[in-house]
Amino acid sequence: MATADTITALRDKATRLRIHSLRATTAAGSGHPTSCLSAADLVSALFFHVMRYDPANPRDPANDRFVLSKGHAAPILYAAWAEAGLFPPEKLLTLRQFGSDLEGHPTPRFAGAYVGTGALGQGLSIACGMAYAGRLDNAAYRVYCLMGDGEVAEGSVWEAAAFASHYKLSNLTAIVDVNRLGQSDPTMLQHDTGTYARRFAAFGWQAFEVDGHKFEHILDAFDRALKVTGQPTVLIARTFKGKGVSFIENKNGWHGKPVPKADLEKALAELPLDAAPKRAEIPRPAPPPAPLPAPTKMAAPAYQKGQQVATREGYGAALKKLAEADPRVIAVDGDVKNSTFAEVLAQAHPGRFIECYIAEQNMVGVAVGISTAGRVPFASTFACFLTRAYDQIRMAAISRANLKLMGSHAGVSIGEDGASQMGLEDLAMMRAVGGSTVLYPSDAVAMEKLVEQAAKLPGIVYLRGTRMKSPVLYDNNEEFPVGGSKVLRQTPDDAVTVVAAGVTLHEALKAHEELKREGINLRVIDLYSVKPADGATLLAAARATGNTLLVVEDHFAEGGLGEAVLGAVAEEGVRVVQLAVRFLPTSGKPEELLDAVGISARHIAARARALAAERTATRR
Amino acid sequence: MATADTITALRDKATRLRIHSLRATTAAGSGHPTSCLSAADLVSALFFHVMRYDPANPRDPANDRFVLSKGHAAPILYAAWAEAGLFPPEKLLTLRQFGSDLEGHPTPRFAGAYVGTGALGQGLSIACGMAYAGRLDNAAYRVYCLMGDGEVAEGSVWEAAAFASHYKLSNLTAIVDVNRLGQSDPTMLQHDTGTYARRFAAFGWQAFEVDGHKFEHILDAFDRALKVTGQPTVLIARTFKGKGVSFIENKNGWHGKPVPKADLEKALAELPLDAAPKRAEIPRPAPPPAPLPAPTKMAAPAYQKGQQVATREGYGAALKKLAEADPRVIAVDGDVKNSTFAEVLAQAHPGRFIECYIAEQNMVGVAVGISTAGRVPFASTFACFLTRAYDQIRMAAISRANLKLMGSHAGVSIGEDGASQMGLEDLAMMRAVGGSTVLYPSDAVAMEKLVEQAAKLPGIVYLRGTRMKSPVLYDNNEEFPVGGSKVLRQTPDDAVTVVAAGVTLHEALKAHEELKREGINLRVIDLYSVKPADGATLLAAARATGNTLLVVEDHFAEGGLGEAVLGAVAEEGVRVVQLAVRFLPTSGKPEELLDAVGISARHIAARARALAAERTATRR
Repeated sequence: MATADTITALRDKATRLRIHSLRATTAAGSGHPTSCLSAADLVSALFFHVMRYDPANPRDPANDRFVLSKGHAAPILYAAWAEAGLFPPEKLLTLRQFGSDLEGHPTPRFAGAYVGTGALGQGLSIACGMAYAGRLDNAAYRVYCLMGDGEVAEGSVWEAAAFASHYKLSNLTAIVDVNRLGQSDPTMLQHDTGTYARRFAAFGWQAFEVDGHKFEHILDAFDRALKVTGQPTVLIARTFKGKGVSFIENKNGWHGKPVPKADLEKALAELPLDAAPKRAEIPRPAPPPAPLPAPTKMAAPAYQKGQQVATREGYGAALKKLAEADPRVIAVDGDVKNSTFAEVLAQAHPGRFIECYIAEQNMVGVAVGISTAGRVPFASTFACFLTRAYDQIRMAAISRANLKLMGSHAGVSIGEDGASQMGLEDLAMMRAVGGSTVLYPSDAVAMEKLVEQAAKLPGIVYLRGTRMKSPVLYDNNEEFPVGGSKVLRQTPDDAVTVVAAGVTLHEALKAHEELKREGINLRVIDLYSVKPADGATLLAAARATGNTLLVVEDHFAEGGLGEAVLGAVAEEGVRVVQLAVRFLPTSGKPEELLDAVGISARHIAARARALAAERTATRR
Repeated sequence: MATADTITALRDKATRLRIHSLRATTAAGSGHPTSCLSAADLVSALFFHVMRYDPANPRDPANDRFVLSKGHAAPILYAAWAEAGLFPPEKLLTLRQFGSDLEGHPTPRFAGAYVGTGALGQGLSIACGMAYAGRLDNAAYRVYCLMGDGEVAEGSVWEAAAFASHYKLSNLTAIVDVNRLGQSDPTMLQHDTGTYARRFAAFGWQAFEVDGHKFEHILDAFDRALKVTGQPTVLIARTFKGKGVSFIENKNGWHGKPVPKADLEKALAELPLDAAPKRAEIPRPAPPPAPLPAPTKMAAPAYQKGQQVATREGYGAALKKLAEADPRVIAVDGDVKNSTFAEVLAQAHPGRFIECYIAEQNMVGVAVGISTAGRVPFASTFACFLTRAYDQIRMAAISRANLKLMGSHAGVSIGEDGASQMGLEDLAMMRAVGGSTVLYPSDAVAMEKLVEQAAKLPGIVYLRGTRMKSPVLYDNNEEFPVGGSKVLRQTPDDAVTVVAAGVTLHEALKAHEELKREGINLRVIDLYSVKPADGATLLAAARATGNTLLVVEDHFAEGGLGEAVLGAVAEEGVRVVQLAVRFLPTSGKPEELLDAVGISARHIAARARALAAERTATRR
């Protein structure tokens, strides 16, 4: 049991955290002080009694981890680190200023945050990934995740809850700050902590209902959580938004509003500090986990040209080889591992694979969490189902996460399953992720080489995979630099350039054969690197073929390969003709659908023929 | 209680559904027969005893509603309607063929499906919307939603579960087909129906555990569900995947695989039909709900030019006016109604607003469900949080849903809250939705006019809103046709054309003033219709100003305004210079951020000045 002195010290720290949160938000003129005040006692307990960490080294691998899922309470996170000694408290007044790392919502620009938060309901998945990584590494650290009550309405929280109990993550403790009030109204459950507890219990957690402003309760629950085995634990903490300042406490209409400058002193007067506070002792961390062995070089692919292999098959094979060469690599998947071929790794090395079941948001969150422990996660599912996790992917970019994604079953070429299973917007979605790299291999060799590079490249890398088999095009020693392209067919007198990738590249090669017989030379470019795109090669090809590029893609016309090409040569006044999917496709055979939407060899040849004729006419 | 004759009849129907499902998938050479067989008894009970509907008119508004959330079991949905008499059973053999409305996963091309399903875990939200609409309309119909057990891992299911109990949707009954096996492995909970029941109970549902192959159990539970008041009900049905055919029943590795042609007769031999089956009686529907009154014309806006109004404020005001004019209009929001200004409607007409709390996936699903009852739902949240529901939005397009979305707080101009709250990929995301319309008003008049049009335009319409205030630019009688644009500044000797929308339009107008003083005339185009974009006006402007367009947007460079412009003039060889967000922004003042990312008036003027100088140099 904690002593009275400890509690006095923690109460004093909580008061300091409240004061800092109020001062900083009033200085900034915006922010969420009331959401900080409800959590102040919980955060004080965590940072000055429960968590074991080196306050001078927030990213020390031995530290217990803290995820502030309710990211709008950022000021209290900053205040806790300042009070722990990481930086002088005066800096807290730079909150939300341009240039300060104390942003409106936490990002890893601030050393005390492993990840970005602020899109609600995502922290618990990340914490699950951290806890899973800790167990993989036999690490002593524990993971704590502070959530708001409003965000518990997000389904991703329940995906994470199911995951954590399924994998028995007893090194994970969540805290729900049940302050009753959402942004615009009271929450659905208000102060009904019993229902929160029953929900978590039904999802396999040990739940403790506590008064979130009573240190005796809080410390006792954290103590008991340490002793729980075989399941994760959660504190359902009944709190009051704005706690400690009478005129904002438990009042609707005070979400996201700083105390006006004129009222700040009145508020602070309600938060008296002890003249001689007891000193809080931050427990020191246990020894850090052993570092992972260094990666070795991956052997070259071993395909034969012309061999029929789907790029998704190439992905599975490459993933297994990569994992064998690079101990950091780990895969996650959403119950489609037999379709994405991630099962090749799962079967060979079960310890390097995590089944996340049908819960793509949590899958991505878990991957982000695992990446914070120095692992390199590859997450795979159907390209279309990555849309389910777009908010998590967007936030992963803000987290500067080292995340690799593979979306299989891209485009209409999946055939009979119909539009719901076709990734037709994944390139648009992934290109628009800040700092992302987008790759689209057309054969198994390219897939393997790009998987290998993805592991080396920091940040978010997306690989687009195809369901149907296609012939291997490249030698096993071919290299595929990111930002490059391959000119696969070229003569000194090409009439037209076709730019393609994936299934449409194979259609373009067929069109090339067809037109060759008619005496029309088609230049064919494999744009395997969609972002960044190889503007120089594209421009040179355009200039050589009537200032025109014909781009063919198995994707909606918006935001995909065509617009990537347009963007790469935007300032050059190049004419770009787009063959792309322009209406909602239906079920059918792959070949029927490629033709129906206008991106088959026949359509490419027809359009190229017309463009070649135009050029001849112009020349006359 | 059901009689023995009824049960005999239902058993016979179930056998027929199994036979149809097997035959159709074997004929197609793909599909999910085992997922149909586990559900056959449940579907038989629903279609031939429980649900009240007109089998000749699947979209009769009086009918009970059925949502097949586990869309991969489509063959059994088609089989049920064929057995109900909607079409001859022979047509079932066109399953998955190009041109057939019996697609691999259901879409509304098939009359028996209100919505598209196949992205798992979405059906319950749609069913919630249908049930909510039924209550709004005082309708007698009930809503049934059949889910798989694997998909219950999706968080969206729990968002819907919380919503349904919060709003006491006792006209909603869900059924979970707990067949134990997912696609690639057993599910997390396998046959632990008790845990499913506890989870739904904790989320406020009355749960009934049943043997999903015992009609006595099934019918009794449906009966009891009818009597439950004040809460939704769920049948947790223990079933076996592949039930009825010994060599596929309860076996892993049979997901999504048809019985091979050679084994089909062996399978069918295990499914004997009664020689003289009892006739199943489909209950007739209750009277339909009264139709909604016809819309009246909305009065013109009443803003003053120069008045400072944020477009999100314009949205709230327009929404209220629209709802008063058009009884079909209803709004949903995710606990940000005081930021999106949807609260203007909520406060004036609480019955026309549904608070969906912080659960954007369910918010969109509820809106889709409501739209099936002839309502016109407007769903709003921060633009960035619509990414949370991208899969639902994508599926809404496949559902041909009449869905209107407003994303507020677009771009870096939100300022201090930081990147997690900035919609910087919403245009890319929404442009890549099949058949969508994307609108980006720059003042309150345009917002109001476009809100009005959105209600009239069928399908998915996205409106992008801005947080910061800006001056009203347009007369109240200005019209904004979809696909149009406004040339706001123009002279016979314009040096450069700037294309912008939203906050960057106001920056462009400032740049115009600045350059005018230097004797450089800037043409300024408001591209309020991003998709479709006004290619003719853009091209004419480009031709008039050195074949060049300068596009400025508060969005990532990929997939947004710049690429929309590129796409609109792609084949014309126009030079397009893009000013856009090219790195992850941070917190800061709106003006600081607009300048830091390079899209402020200063940057526009500098780039335009350089382009003008180039033109002068070229002319010399």
